[in-house]
Amino acid sequence: MTGMARKESVMRITKATANLEAYTPGEQPKSKSVVKLNTNENPYPPSPRCAKVLKCFDLDKLRRYPDPVFMALREAIATLNGTKVENVFVGNGSDEILTLAARAFVENSEIIASLDPSYSLYKTLAAIRDVKWVGSSADSAKIVIPDSASLFLWTNPNAPTGGFASPQKISSFARKFKGVVIVDEAYADFAKENCMKLAVAPRNHNIIVMRTFSKSYSLAGLRVGYCVGPVDLIEALYKIKDSYNVDAIAQAVALAALKDRAYHAKTVKKVVETRESFTAELRSLGWDVPESEANFVFARPAKMPAPELFAALRERNIYVRYFPGPLTGDRLRITIGTPAEMKKLLSTVKKLNA
Amino acid sequence: MTGMARKESVMRITKATANLEAYTPGEQPKSKSVVKLNTNENPYPPSPRCAKVLKCFDLDKLRRYPDPVFMALREAIATLNGTKVENVFVGNGSDEILTLAARAFVENSEIIASLDPSYSLYKTLAAIRDVKWVGSSADSAKIVIPDSASLFLWTNPNAPTGGFASPQKISSFARKFKGVVIVDEAYADFAKENCMKLAVAPRNHNIIVMRTFSKSYSLAGLRVGYCVGPVDLIEALYKIKDSYNVDAIAQAVALAALKDRAYHAKTVKKVVETRESFTAELRSLGWDVPESEANFVFARPAKMPAPELFAALRERNIYVRYFPGPLTGDRLRITIGTPAEMKKLLSTVKKLNA
Repeated sequence: MTGMARKESVMRITKATANLEAYTPGEQPKSKSVVKLNTNENPYPPSPRCAKVLKCFDLDKLRRYPDPVFMALREAIATLNGTKVENVFVGNGSDEILTLAARAFVENSEIIASLDPSYSLYKTLAAIRDVKWVGSSADSAKIVIPDSASLFLWTNPNAPTGGFASPQKISSFARKFKGVVIVDEAYADFAKENCMKLAVAPRNHNIIVMRTFSKSYSLAGLRVGYCVGPVDLIEALYKIKDSYNVDAIAQAVALAALKDRAYHAKTVKKVVETRESFTAELRSLGWDVPESEANFVFARPAKMPAPELFAALRERNIYVRYFPGPLTGDRLRITIGTPAEMKKLLSTVKKLNA
Repeated sequence: MTGMARKESVMRITKATANLEAYTPGEQPKSKSVVKLNTNENPYPPSPRCAKVLKCFDLDKLRRYPDPVFMALREAIATLNGTKVENVFVGNGSDEILTLAARAFVENSEIIASLDPSYSLYKTLAAIRDVKWVGSSADSAKIVIPDSASLFLWTNPNAPTGGFASPQKISSFARKFKGVVIVDEAYADFAKENCMKLAVAPRNHNIIVMRTFSKSYSLAGLRVGYCVGPVDLIEALYKIKDSYNVDAIAQAVALAALKDRAYHAKTVKKVVETRESFTAELRSLGWDVPESEANFVFARPAKMPAPELFAALRERNIYVRYFPGPLTGDRLRITIGTPAEMKKLLSTVKKLNA
């Protein structure tokens, strides 16, 4: 439609929206008996300090608009990451930051790129933005992307693979890339290394590192993500965000979670330990399990085709994630739960002789 | 930039974003001693049931993603308004619904239109969407807008004027309009009448009525808005929203507020009574105060120019809103607070001989 008005007698839903296939998030079953290992949620509850914030929250505060620029939370994020408040943006989940970045950094004629396979939302994000998406193999030493790509979304550790790219590799890519590189570090707290030092480096012009409270802080239900990057890019996000994009309760609860470093470290350690022992167990059953630096593994069953096993597990109230397609269809993405949950999954896998 | 790639050696912030003048929300002073009548917030706290929800909230729920389609809240909204869940969408504040509508219903070459003066965010919204905005006088019997306008945002009661258009007037406009009409009813609970019956009418094809929890429910800090309209338009909003746009706590608190009908009615009644008595008082001082159907008045001081009075009040810790410009610059928009707050404002106005 670009460049001319619609001639129809009705002009309602845009072509891009009408043609859109919506993103399908992982299932959220209501039953408490489900072993839920399908959406990379944390098996442990959030910091007890969050409960205290909710119990003591001054209800009268809610009648007023929240701090539009979430200054208390930003200050804590800046301190934690060794940067300044003007380098920090907070979104209604990382999802909102991605949506804003697609508006702020991509012209109508340009392209959004990412690894392939990667977070399947990125393709939908490009479709919503009504621009092309291109994927680049995560395995190739050299990433080939078109000249008109202006936003590269690099999930690191990657999902669903769990694979990790070194900061050196990402930095060297970013130096050659004309546009903005967002390193989506949703899972970075479970990894040995991360790219935050690239984002806060004084000479950084185009790298934004994004984090979320949904995974390592156990706050997926709250919707808070943040990103750190060069002031001009961060300012662009502030310019186009909704006036009050993060609510007052979310600001307060996320702040409490962020400040409880000991609890965060303890939870992350437990998940990482479970990942390591679970990986070893699966391998001993003959599964192919690449190293993961995230809170999930992307594993190929030893004997049963992945979609069959997916269905068999589901029948037994164990939910994992299956992504059809040539790059992902032979594997299952399994979130790391509690040791008890992983034990239940393993015994079921053994029973099924998978 | 449309239709060709950027040739620059760097491609970062889009032209539209770079050129954007960000929307300035009303000030949110931190001091509790300020009489805050500048952002149309409710002077009374939210329903006590909201406090109960926060106190009893099962923290463990937060580690999981929230219901992406907020079914419990939607059911309550549908019941309240005599419609079905498939006709209801909920956003992270009405702001998010407006942003999504600008994507779902407006092609790149089209126009967003609204009354003028009206909610000043609309202009910014069009700029963020990188399309033209046109305003149409609220006073003219006949609204003239270009043929390529595909989204009309009709605030009713209007802000900052407080003026009200009858459902008949809006319905007759919508029948002739090719695009989508969003009736932004942020203030409708303070009005005698509203347009919900237009939105739920079986033959309605292009009217969406939008409501918010920010005003009559005293939940501005929470960020929940909703809209009701034809299934195909509502579905379009679901297709392009972020996966989990309303957090679990916001869903639960808004639901509790919605269900406390008695508290809501009582709060609204108090605000309307204060509006009527305050209007009479201002008029007795010689001010020009048009009828308002909202929780604010848009009033012209009897003696002092509006910007001068705005500044004088601010110095005395009384915040009201001033919108410069030929259509609005001779008036102040004053939110209806408690009777005590209005009394303080009136005595200051008298002292200043305004």
